[in-house]
Amino acid sequence: MQSKHAPLISDISSHLISSGGKRLRPLLTLASAKLCGYRGSHHIQLAAIVEFIHTATLLHDDVVDESDQRRGVSSVNILWDNSSSVLVGDYLFARSFQLMTEVGRLDILEALSDASAKIAEGEVLQLTASANISTSEDLYYKIVEGKTAALFSASMKVGGMLSNAQDDIIEALSSYGNALGISFQIVDDILDFVGKETQIGKSLGDDFRERKLTLPIIDSISKADDTEIKFWKRTIEDGDQITSDFDRALKILNRNSSMDYSKRIAINWSKNAKKSLAALPNSSIKTVLEELADYVVFRVS
Amino acid sequence: MQSKHAPLISDISSHLISSGGKRLRPLLTLASAKLCGYRGSHHIQLAAIVEFIHTATLLHDDVVDESDQRRGVSSVNILWDNSSSVLVGDYLFARSFQLMTEVGRLDILEALSDASAKIAEGEVLQLTASANISTSEDLYYKIVEGKTAALFSASMKVGGMLSNAQDDIIEALSSYGNALGISFQIVDDILDFVGKETQIGKSLGDDFRERKLTLPIIDSISKADDTEIKFWKRTIEDGDQITSDFDRALKILNRNSSMDYSKRIAINWSKNAKKSLAALPNSSIKTVLEELADYVVFRVS
Repeated sequence: MQSKHAPLISDISSHLISSGGKRLRPLLTLASAKLCGYRGSHHIQLAAIVEFIHTATLLHDDVVDESDQRRGVSSVNILWDNSSSVLVGDYLFARSFQLMTEVGRLDILEALSDASAKIAEGEVLQLTASANISTSEDLYYKIVEGKTAALFSASMKVGGMLSNAQDDIIEALSSYGNALGISFQIVDDILDFVGKETQIGKSLGDDFRERKLTLPIIDSISKADDTEIKFWKRTIEDGDQITSDFDRALKILNRNSSMDYSKRIAINWSKNAKKSLAALPNSSIKTVLEELADYVVFRVS
Repeated sequence: MQSKHAPLISDISSHLISSGGKRLRPLLTLASAKLCGYRGSHHIQLAAIVEFIHTATLLHDDVVDESDQRRGVSSVNILWDNSSSVLVGDYLFARSFQLMTEVGRLDILEALSDASAKIAEGEVLQLTASANISTSEDLYYKIVEGKTAALFSASMKVGGMLSNAQDDIIEALSSYGNALGISFQIVDDILDFVGKETQIGKSLGDDFRERKLTLPIIDSISKADDTEIKFWKRTIEDGDQITSDFDRALKILNRNSSMDYSKRIAINWSKNAKKSLAALPNSSIKTVLEELADYVVFRVS
């Protein structure tokens, strides 16, 4: 992540590295390659690459969402500025493709450029759905498959491709990643309402204030009475919010069992993830991936 | 540039296509491939790819520079918003790499990912140099080689690579693109002071107001007396500007012959560009590229 010419890139990179994160995506790539018996060293590069892509999207997301916190510390757009977030994101994205050419596999490059395009599409889709209270659950899944699941899926897929695994194995790994990603995102949506700020590393209610149609809200709107519809129209559609609205939103979500509903859907996707692995022979890595599917849904951070 | 899922991408794409532009970079790729006797059809894809990369950087530049005009029409960040500019830029960038995998040449992918990283580095470097009146001419060239010349150079290079031209030919084509790009950028700097707004398609003095250290200003600062240093400190370093400052800056630049100096340097780079082509056999395309080097330096738009 270093740059010879532009020290600002190194400064921002150091900040990003030291602020941590779960590093879930690179772990998936390492696990997937290992699961398929890969013996070379390119899986480490690929793991770095998927984390680069992820970091680039986070830098841009922070600008789009006007976030001020990320992983428990001030985000780059606040510590530096929006321009730095945009341009260093571009640098990391370009670097990730440079690194891919070093791996020398066109098919992997294709998988990761497909994922990158899908991520951007999902983000754009989210932008247009935001503040629109008629957003359907279908559209929500389309957004999530792009903005989150595409990279989870590709992270798994490229590990298999690198190992020259059979098509059905690669397909199983991709499916696992996709289901895991959807489950992960729904839990993110839930944690935005009921997480602990010290654990999730950002302010509670960010999605609500940004007027994002997350799964709990979409479900609650589908069950809303007239008073509740008025509430969602004012807070989400018109963006006219007061501080106490967040608590009120949470009460409505609980009254309509929308938190429970979302949790149930997340658990289902987690089960789907585990099911995708069924065809694979048992191994310690397979067990880790199964446990990961449980972790993702019961995590608190 | 279309997207099945996110109509906003198609809307913005249509806006970008209809607002025109010189399409210089894709022309370079087509010319370079033709010059080397290429007979396939991948040069058209490559031409589209370099324009995609260019368009992606323009979308992000508009956010960084807070521009309101581009090619004579309102820019995307104004017509839509910053978020759309960032995310649609990301989409185009990812799409360009998707298209590259279709061409199926890892070496070309490497050249274009190298160029993309260099562009981002140049942009970040420009960010850190902005408002710093001790910016040297050396640093200026480093910025320009990144933000502008890298893609001009790569546009030429990939045409040669696609044609499997010899290394010295590819080297000559790259050098031409690099020199052409530097010349192009210096003329851009000049036009920001003395161009006609209807011709350059954006507001005069944008660079000055954004406190960019362009070549005319760097040269003038190196020749400045105490009063002029005070002026540059106030307007560029402190960013404390009033409307009449732009005219005063232009007067100072002319008094120090900094416009003439910059023009001379631009002409030199244009000559370098033409010299790079010397080793190539004469052809109608070679003549076009020589004429293009003259156009770039004498252009008014």
